[in-house]
Amino acid sequence: MRFAAGVEYDGQGFAGWQMQAGVPTVAGHLIGALSTIADRPVSLICAGRTDAGVHASGQVIHFDAPVQRSSRAWLFGTNANLPRQISLSWVRPVPQHFHARFSALARTYRYEIRNRPARSALYAGRALWQREALDTEAMNAAAAQLCGEHDFSSFRAADCTSRSAVRRITRLRIERSGERIWIEVTANAFLLHMVRNLVGALLATGRGGLAPAEFPRLLQARDRRLAPPMAAAEGLYLAQVDYDPAFGIPAAADPL
Amino acid sequence: MRFAAGVEYDGQGFAGWQMQAGVPTVAGHLIGALSTIADRPVSLICAGRTDAGVHASGQVIHFDAPVQRSSRAWLFGTNANLPRQISLSWVRPVPQHFHARFSALARTYRYEIRNRPARSALYAGRALWQREALDTEAMNAAAAQLCGEHDFSSFRAADCTSRSAVRRITRLRIERSGERIWIEVTANAFLLHMVRNLVGALLATGRGGLAPAEFPRLLQARDRRLAPPMAAAEGLYLAQVDYDPAFGIPAAADPL
Repeated sequence: MRFAAGVEYDGQGFAGWQMQAGVPTVAGHLIGALSTIADRPVSLICAGRTDAGVHASGQVIHFDAPVQRSSRAWLFGTNANLPRQISLSWVRPVPQHFHARFSALARTYRYEIRNRPARSALYAGRALWQREALDTEAMNAAAAQLCGEHDFSSFRAADCTSRSAVRRITRLRIERSGERIWIEVTANAFLLHMVRNLVGALLATGRGGLAPAEFPRLLQARDRRLAPPMAAAEGLYLAQVDYDPAFGIPAAADPL
Repeated sequence: MRFAAGVEYDGQGFAGWQMQAGVPTVAGHLIGALSTIADRPVSLICAGRTDAGVHASGQVIHFDAPVQRSSRAWLFGTNANLPRQISLSWVRPVPQHFHARFSALARTYRYEIRNRPARSALYAGRALWQREALDTEAMNAAAAQLCGEHDFSSFRAADCTSRSAVRRITRLRIERSGERIWIEVTANAFLLHMVRNLVGALLATGRGGLAPAEFPRLLQARDRRLAPPMAAAEGLYLAQVDYDPAFGIPAAADPL
C-alpha cells in the first residue's frame, strides 16, 4: 500500500535532504524512522529535494508500506523515532499511481527576511537578516517581469542537470509587515538553486542595485554569471506542494 | 550615562534570565558581552525576569555605561559578543531616572500554541503542541472574567514573594489562525508564574474541563491548589514592555 505524508523540518543541523553516508540528512532520518516502524527497509520519494539549511513546512513524500499499518500508526510511530527538528504533519493512503515528485502540479517556496538594523535572536538560522532597508515596491515590479513561462538559465546552478531550463512561475509576490518581509513563489517546478538565485536578484533590486527593467534582459541573456549572487539557505522554506485534488493531499500550514 | 536596550532571546538552552554561577543564563551572557565592550564590569536591570525555556521578543534592560560609547557601538559590539540565541534589537540613551523595571507601566506576554494532531518540527521548543481541539470561544469567555483588577493568589507560584497579589489585567485575548492559537495578555505587572498559571487554566477551559463561569469562583478562592496546572515554558514570550512615551522606548516586533 502506498502512503503520502507531509513533512516539516528545521534545516539547521542537516546536510540537506538527500541521504549521504556519514552525515545527518532529513531523508536519512525519515528512512531510518519509517524502517524502524516497518521493521524492514523502507524507501521514499520526496516532492522536492532541499539544500543544506533549507527548511520545510510542506514537503511531501510517498512510500510503499512493506507491512500493514494504519495511517495513524505511521504518523505517530514515525514522529516518535525522528529528531525534534523533523516531523510528519499527516499520513494518508494514496493510489498506487500517486508519485510525490511526478504527480506534483506546483510547488510554493517562501523566503523569510528580517529587515532591521540588528540581527534577530528569534530568527537566527530561520530567516535572512537584511540590514539595508529594502524597497519592496521595486522588488514587486521586478517580480512581475519573472512571472510566466521563461527560460531561467540565468537563475540555475552551474551543475543543474535538468534538460530544459523553461519553467512557468504562476505567482511571485513580496509582502511586508513591519520588519518582516517574505517572498512567495509558485511554479510548476524549479531548477537547481532557482529560488535562491531569484531571491538573490530580488534582494539586489530591493537594495537599489538592479533596476526592475533589467530583468527581461537578464532572462534573455541565459547566463548565470550576469545575475546577482544566490541568497543564503537559512531564509528558505518549501511551503506547499499542489496535486490533483482527487488525491486528497492536505494543504500545508504557514511556515512561520 | 544610562542606556536602555531591547533584548530578544530564544530561551531554549538557558537556565532562565537570572545570572547563576555555572549555568548559562540570558543575564549572564548579556553582562559578559556588555562588560567585554566596556572592558570593565557592567550590571543591568531587566523589566521582567523570565523562567528557563521562556523566550522574549521585547525584553527591556537598562545599564549605566562605565565608559563612553555610542548607542551604535553598544548595539553592534554587544551583539557580536552574544550567542546567536540572544540579541539586542536597539540601544538608546535614557534619563538617569529611567528604570527598566520600576518605570514599566505595562507588560505584554504572548503564549503560542500549535493546535494540531501531530507535533511540529518548526515550532519545537517555540510553541506548545496541543493535540485536542481547543474551543477558543470558551477560552475568550473565561478570559473576560480575568480582565480587570483582581487578587490573583490562585494563579501565583507558592514561592512568589510579592507583598500584594492584586494585579490589573487590561487585555487578555485568545486568537486563532488555522492551527495556530495565541494568547496575549497585558497587565500592569505579573506575579511569579502568573501568565503560565493563567494559560494552564485557559487551556483547561479550551479542552472543556473548566467552564468559563468557574473563573470568578477560582479568583475568589485565592487558593493556587484549586486552579489547573501551569502551562509549559516553551510557548511563552515576553512580547512588549510599555513606558511613558517621553522615554522614547521603541515598540517591539512581533515574536513569531
